[in-house]
Amino acid sequence: MSFTRIALLLAFALTPVMTTFADEGMWLFNNPPRKILKEKYGFEPSDEWLTHLQKSAVRFNSGGSGSFVSGDGLVMTNHHVGADALAKLTTSKNDYLNDGFHAKSEKDEIKCLDLELNVLQKITDVTDQVNTAVKADMKPEEAEKARRAAMNNIEKEATDKSKLRSDVVTLYQGGLYHLYQYKKYTDVRLVFAPEQKAAFFGGDPDNFEFPRYDLDICFFRAYEDGKPVKPEHHLKWSEAGAKEGELIFVAGHPGKTDRQNTVAHLEYMRDRQFPVMLNMLRRREVMLNNYAERSDKNAQEAQDELFGIQNSRKARLGGLAGLQDPKVMSAKRAAEEKLRQAIAKDTKNAEAAKAFETIDQAFEKFLPDVVEFNLLEQNAAFNSQLFHIAVELVRLADELPKANADRLREYRESGLDSLKQELFSPAPIYDSLEIAKLADSLGFYMEMRGGEGPVTPYVSPESKRYAEMLSKVMDGKSPRTRAAELINGTKLKDVAERERYFKEGKKAIDASTDPLIKLAKLIDPAARAARKKYETTVEEPLRQSYAKLAKARFAAEGTESYPDATFTLRLAFGTVKGYTEDGKQIPAWTTLGGTFEHAEKHGNKDPFELPASWIKNKGKLKLGTPYNFVSTADIIGGNSGSPVVNRAGEVVGIIFDGNIQSLVLDFAYSDEQARATSVHSAGILEALRTIYQADGLVKELTSAGK
Amino acid sequence: MSFTRIALLLAFALTPVMTTFADEGMWLFNNPPRKILKEKYGFEPSDEWLTHLQKSAVRFNSGGSGSFVSGDGLVMTNHHVGADALAKLTTSKNDYLNDGFHAKSEKDEIKCLDLELNVLQKITDVTDQVNTAVKADMKPEEAEKARRAAMNNIEKEATDKSKLRSDVVTLYQGGLYHLYQYKKYTDVRLVFAPEQKAAFFGGDPDNFEFPRYDLDICFFRAYEDGKPVKPEHHLKWSEAGAKEGELIFVAGHPGKTDRQNTVAHLEYMRDRQFPVMLNMLRRREVMLNNYAERSDKNAQEAQDELFGIQNSRKARLGGLAGLQDPKVMSAKRAAEEKLRQAIAKDTKNAEAAKAFETIDQAFEKFLPDVVEFNLLEQNAAFNSQLFHIAVELVRLADELPKANADRLREYRESGLDSLKQELFSPAPIYDSLEIAKLADSLGFYMEMRGGEGPVTPYVSPESKRYAEMLSKVMDGKSPRTRAAELINGTKLKDVAERERYFKEGKKAIDASTDPLIKLAKLIDPAARAARKKYETTVEEPLRQSYAKLAKARFAAEGTESYPDATFTLRLAFGTVKGYTEDGKQIPAWTTLGGTFEHAEKHGNKDPFELPASWIKNKGKLKLGTPYNFVSTADIIGGNSGSPVVNRAGEVVGIIFDGNIQSLVLDFAYSDEQARATSVHSAGILEALRTIYQADGLVKELTSAGK
Repeated sequence: MSFTRIALLLAFALTPVMTTFADEGMWLFNNPPRKILKEKYGFEPSDEWLTHLQKSAVRFNSGGSGSFVSGDGLVMTNHHVGADALAKLTTSKNDYLNDGFHAKSEKDEIKCLDLELNVLQKITDVTDQVNTAVKADMKPEEAEKARRAAMNNIEKEATDKSKLRSDVVTLYQGGLYHLYQYKKYTDVRLVFAPEQKAAFFGGDPDNFEFPRYDLDICFFRAYEDGKPVKPEHHLKWSEAGAKEGELIFVAGHPGKTDRQNTVAHLEYMRDRQFPVMLNMLRRREVMLNNYAERSDKNAQEAQDELFGIQNSRKARLGGLAGLQDPKVMSAKRAAEEKLRQAIAKDTKNAEAAKAFETIDQAFEKFLPDVVEFNLLEQNAAFNSQLFHIAVELVRLADELPKANADRLREYRESGLDSLKQELFSPAPIYDSLEIAKLADSLGFYMEMRGGEGPVTPYVSPESKRYAEMLSKVMDGKSPRTRAAELINGTKLKDVAERERYFKEGKKAIDASTDPLIKLAKLIDPAARAARKKYETTVEEPLRQSYAKLAKARFAAEGTESYPDATFTLRLAFGTVKGYTEDGKQIPAWTTLGGTFEHAEKHGNKDPFELPASWIKNKGKLKLGTPYNFVSTADIIGGNSGSPVVNRAGEVVGIIFDGNIQSLVLDFAYSDEQARATSVHSAGILEALRTIYQADGLVKELTSAGK
Repeated sequence: MSFTRIALLLAFALTPVMTTFADEGMWLFNNPPRKILKEKYGFEPSDEWLTHLQKSAVRFNSGGSGSFVSGDGLVMTNHHVGADALAKLTTSKNDYLNDGFHAKSEKDEIKCLDLELNVLQKITDVTDQVNTAVKADMKPEEAEKARRAAMNNIEKEATDKSKLRSDVVTLYQGGLYHLYQYKKYTDVRLVFAPEQKAAFFGGDPDNFEFPRYDLDICFFRAYEDGKPVKPEHHLKWSEAGAKEGELIFVAGHPGKTDRQNTVAHLEYMRDRQFPVMLNMLRRREVMLNNYAERSDKNAQEAQDELFGIQNSRKARLGGLAGLQDPKVMSAKRAAEEKLRQAIAKDTKNAEAAKAFETIDQAFEKFLPDVVEFNLLEQNAAFNSQLFHIAVELVRLADELPKANADRLREYRESGLDSLKQELFSPAPIYDSLEIAKLADSLGFYMEMRGGEGPVTPYVSPESKRYAEMLSKVMDGKSPRTRAAELINGTKLKDVAERERYFKEGKKAIDASTDPLIKLAKLIDPAARAARKKYETTVEEPLRQSYAKLAKARFAAEGTESYPDATFTLRLAFGTVKGYTEDGKQIPAWTTLGGTFEHAEKHGNKDPFELPASWIKNKGKLKLGTPYNFVSTADIIGGNSGSPVVNRAGEVVGIIFDGNIQSLVLDFAYSDEQARATSVHSAGILEALRTIYQADGLVKELTSAGK
């Protein structure tokens, strides 16, 4: 893999270079890559083109992307993005996640339990407003508080004025602050989902691989006032779909990248963060796998979470492999050296020179507290949905009486509606799964804090306090006994009970005998303290340092650039194009027919077993239809479900994955082998028509633009 | 679970108590529980009875137990003990591990590639011989060396004289040394194995559970000079088998228990050893699962190792749960307190009083080096069979020229034949599996040692050396690239090449350009240093301290006791008896018919899918025949395959598992819920007769005693 592009990109404003541009970037819609698109592809998107795409794009708040694909509010996303909603609708009678679903008419569509969709309406630069609140001589704690107040207030004011969901987004790790305002849909109904076996054909072994053969799609419909929404914008469908070598665009919500991180920051991720995270993911994967294997019921309960964890494990493992690759790190080191030199040349950047050191030191300073932060504030010790609800209720009781400006970010006035949607969700919670998860994480807590005392020879000054807290949490019981007692004893499964605590606030919390509320109260002061330590030791110093580096970078390289991903709307672009692996040419796409061969090659055994509908309708299927394809578009987790459109803005596909070589995109773009994987629009139509006889849906899609 | 028995047992010599004895203990054959058996069961085993059982019992050197069950050298063990041999015999044409095997006549029996069986002939107390070699004023390093020399020499002399395999066994963690002499069989042939689906029905979910329905058996035949062995002793078969409430005995090779450990030692295991080990097991489980899922070929290659790892993970998790249970630990603490008081009362025991502290400090002292020891000497950084072979060859070249007395234990003269059997085994080694394993473990090495430097804030004085070693090992490449280069480049898959290095020794090693030999040479000095540190900081001080504690215990409690398990022959006893779980009575046994119901209950889906032979022959099967049963016998891992016999010494079953409550037996015996699980002798006969039509085998078994 070549990372020379990185060095070039960082250098190009210093020494103008005449080179072809790579298809790099997750660009802001208010700062699109006009220059690159024009020079490389001769394409000049109009403002209307951009607005149309922006307002057709949909964010799934559960974590993913989608798009309006009809004038009647039809929303397309991936099956694996819809899976959370599907799992929550699943009952002992109807297993929508595995068996699929098809509403023949609007009245058959099923309302999702807690799904929220967002459509970006407006972006406003509020950098100055945020920054003027923070004075240069403030201590980290004061600075964090002042900035939080400014952000909470900007959002409150904007929400009050517009009735839109309003979020201040931190870009360039602190270089810019933009206000994103969304139209919000909370009445979302399920229209169509294929069987899990078709959507996730090949399962975990094929995940992040190519060639692929997955119908990873799912359709919902947004409603308002009990009627289908007529969205201002929606995408037309291209029946022909993407062609080899064609320029395509992706409008979606990449979750998080770390490309602007300093080398010291990347080393911290490589040596500490990723190994710890991966141990946790493996631990939970093994635990959930064991739970799932015991019965069909267990499997159904754990399925969605297990798939999510396996997906993360594979993605993070790929990311770590990138960080452990000397080629990647030496390219990063070279790029940083160029930036350091640019900074050194410009006397206005004196402050930026110190930023590298501040970032490095921040992680070192926080090391003695990182375990406490992970255990108590990140819930590594308490892996339980019900416990998470208890924490929310306990904190809401403290935070809501405060002025909006002073609240923790997640309890700000402008976000309360979305928070309540989640908190009061009637989605099922399974006792035995909760016990298994909580017992395992309490066991982890004991491992980290020692059974009755400190575990490490490097005794922290806090060891005694840690041991006392552990002892209070465990209450003289084993992890399994304690977990069962807590889950069996809580009444928080009852939504009315949650609403009561929310309404009655502090008084009800103080009077509560609910074991989970009591536990959440017990750990809250320590958890808040750990969080404050994180904010003042890491978050704030990093924010300030990265802001300085961003400023220096803008000065050196210009502002036609893109910030790291933030789960907000971005524009990516690229070419439909295969690649070479181990000397073998991997074609840009697969066909529907290839699916059957792939199944055959794996003995038609799970997870390579096709659903009955596919086997039954194979004879009628146009086997040569393009099915999945790859492109050079710059995407990452969160982009799942993003529409892939052509120059005309028509849907030619839908992103659902990246290949294994793309996992390093977290840290650096490359188009040598890294590819984004999509379901092809022609393959979708053919499957809907021939396998699922979803004629109404096909008609709605194909007539969308007529 | 009640642990009062422990306190009682430790106290009974101090204050004679009139209590019923528990069925506790893994007793030495030269110090059997005569008193308990007589008082509780009125049974007095004769010397002949004991010798007959001892010489009928067989140790599988691959890790397990078995027994001679016919006069023609037929050996019975578990399928999962034979699995290693079965997997090695498996080819692309014959999948003996999954499909089973049945030799209709002697000429069809297949020779195993590297299986060694041991039959214990003689036990001699050599404690004085060993101890006189070690002087009281020796430093740990000298003491270790002197003791090693004494042990190597005793073994060499015994082997030369008797031609028997001769091992000095450390009992009571250093309290006694016994010389065990075995008749050894290396021509072992496969006679019969059922399908994996019958042997391991219920798979990982049912492992360590009860009720169970497994035909976990496998038959081999020992040969000498090309002919079936006529063993001096073999067990008769009981067609009726075990009955509820009946006294039964188990003769087998429990691997390792930690019941005599001090509380500090147990805390170290709980807070450090087990969590680290479990993280490693989970890591390997996830890695192997991913490898296996990719194709049938991969699954076959990884299967045996994956099952082993899942089994260990579940067992260790159960052990850790025990250590994390305050009831277990407080019982341990009470017992230790009693011993401390007894020691305090007897002035002759002054030295023992210090032993507790020495043990505690040993672990603390070793903490800075434990990672290095695990990575380099325990191969955590190099999970590869071929690398292990390279290490053996490199070390043999250094050790063999030394005097026998000075060699590392594993290269002592008396053990060379067994070592060569393993080293020159033609068992298949799979390149792609080796690469996957080595890449993962090299990645782990990078995680532990940082990509380019130390990872912890507690910088060890050795960090620089560690980082340099990592850098040399990785050679500027990523883990995956380096692993592929090493495995693809080595010639050690060729047994002749291994034999060449063995024969030519140091000269060949020094001249070698084989990348694995070079890597093994590179790390050898550091690995040896880490080992020496372990031996002198932990092993030797523990051995001396536990010897003192054992002496004190003998003085206080008498010598009718049993030492912790050491993978040597032991006698356990107990009653066939059900138990109560969550208020529900679990019967002592299951029937063959229950198997079909259990499959049905789990939708007949893998791992609850029965093989075709069972489904086909269900109609003919006597469904009421007892199949699996539980007893209170005191067993642990390594006992797998142990014969279960009645007072008459007849086979009434074969141990294959323990229930989940038995996993804590590692640390303390309990008969409240903990149970040993066996296949019933009547169920075995009925399955062999009706499902497998193995009439010859049935005849051989049932006529064995006639």
